[in-house]
Amino acid sequence: MRSTMMISRRSALALPLAAYAQQAPSVKRYVRFLRDGRAAYGLMDGGRIRELRGSPLAGDVFSGATHPSSAVKLLYPIEPPKVIAVGLNYKSHLGSNPLPKQPEIFFKPTTCLQNPGDPILIPRDAKNVHYEAELVIVIGKKLRNASLAEAQAGIFGYTCGNDVSERDWQKGDLQWWRAKGTDTFGPMGPMIATGLDISKSGIELRLNGETRQKQVLSDLIFDCPTCVQHISRYMTLEPGDVIFTGTPGTTAAMKPGDTVEVEIGGIGMLRNPVKAA
Amino acid sequence: MRSTMMISRRSALALPLAAYAQQAPSVKRYVRFLRDGRAAYGLMDGGRIRELRGSPLAGDVFSGATHPSSAVKLLYPIEPPKVIAVGLNYKSHLGSNPLPKQPEIFFKPTTCLQNPGDPILIPRDAKNVHYEAELVIVIGKKLRNASLAEAQAGIFGYTCGNDVSERDWQKGDLQWWRAKGTDTFGPMGPMIATGLDISKSGIELRLNGETRQKQVLSDLIFDCPTCVQHISRYMTLEPGDVIFTGTPGTTAAMKPGDTVEVEIGGIGMLRNPVKAA
Repeated sequence: MRSTMMISRRSALALPLAAYAQQAPSVKRYVRFLRDGRAAYGLMDGGRIRELRGSPLAGDVFSGATHPSSAVKLLYPIEPPKVIAVGLNYKSHLGSNPLPKQPEIFFKPTTCLQNPGDPILIPRDAKNVHYEAELVIVIGKKLRNASLAEAQAGIFGYTCGNDVSERDWQKGDLQWWRAKGTDTFGPMGPMIATGLDISKSGIELRLNGETRQKQVLSDLIFDCPTCVQHISRYMTLEPGDVIFTGTPGTTAAMKPGDTVEVEIGGIGMLRNPVKAA
Repeated sequence: MRSTMMISRRSALALPLAAYAQQAPSVKRYVRFLRDGRAAYGLMDGGRIRELRGSPLAGDVFSGATHPSSAVKLLYPIEPPKVIAVGLNYKSHLGSNPLPKQPEIFFKPTTCLQNPGDPILIPRDAKNVHYEAELVIVIGKKLRNASLAEAQAGIFGYTCGNDVSERDWQKGDLQWWRAKGTDTFGPMGPMIATGLDISKSGIELRLNGETRQKQVLSDLIFDCPTCVQHISRYMTLEPGDVIFTGTPGTTAAMKPGDTVEVEIGGIGMLRNPVKAA
């Protein structure tokens, strides 16, 4: 399947991507892509990708090659050592749960990550697989016992994520391992944006084109540096680690044939079809 | 701190290590070690380590170098892509919990792994940090939807683990992330044993030399291939992944100054001091 860089024409966010790009010329967007069977990182430059020699975490060291973005298959934009996630991080998603006193953290396995454009696969024994639109933090530096300022400085950038969740397993199992960790339950991408003031942006999820989740990111109960600081009190954060920051509002089940889109102003749109496993 | 290969003289297991070695000359034991600031894998050969060019998962390709085991610092014996764990897997540990219908799985982060001989650090805000002696599976092959036979064949070997757990956080937090995922809460090692019939062995934990946990490994509710098969129904298992298989009996809190030992007949002994963070 060929994946292309998709700019939504239906965005209901405060600012469309183009406006963000004009407002913040210092914002950079990085992708990871497959071309001729090889994975590489690149910097988006209009409709072209300027290939990097290594990871964007190592700096903008260009290989000299460029590719039209339409000619490559996009991959999830970083290969993280760890996938960390925050639960209950918007008032609109709390339901009957009390306001959390501190960020409530859990893990997703790295094997659940899925590329932009590739399918979310519904397992045969799953009955209640929900979408969850989320802002995802990409960590740029090793952090342990970080101050709030160090936590802020340790954030490399942001991308879009879908914290796909089987609600029956989430309720019935001792822990959330397969509810949130089944293969393909972690779509992420398409781009990592750096230099963006995320508190001025918004997140939206569309199921088959219909808006289902929509929230400004300033509504996060624990903002990004606070989450990073809290996690680093207990665990070493490593360059490339990603943190899914929680989902707003209410969610619902997806079914094979659906298409789900997560869009964040200034970052891009993550679109995945839903299929039966 | 220098770590040495320690053979317990107090072992209360059915067979001491030496007897296992005699009974099963085909059993091999692999270590990962630091020497002159460099990490390498090696095969134990009596009191010497025969250095490997790469990981033991890639086969016994020797570098030609050998080291006296007393001259190297041992590291946890594999760097896993994922650390998976099983809860409630011995009747003796169930307490008032009902018998689980299927393996109950959770994740530990890779950053919690700790080397043999290095300290378990009690965080300043932790009050109830328990030991948990566990058999640890090391996966040798990529597995997805494995049959029981494929699961068995996908197990490379076994090592010892301590699934250190803060019980107050385990009860109070939404998920077990810091309860079982804080840095140093995953001691593992010292050796990976291959070719061992683990069902004939036993596990024992000693705190300051006193036996606190002791169980034959045939008492696992879900045996190793069954756990591997179940996990692979949902998640891709990758070479090097480790699976902590659950702890027997009852556990108790450790305090700074304690020494905790996990020993499994045929594998070896994992010893860690306990210190304040």
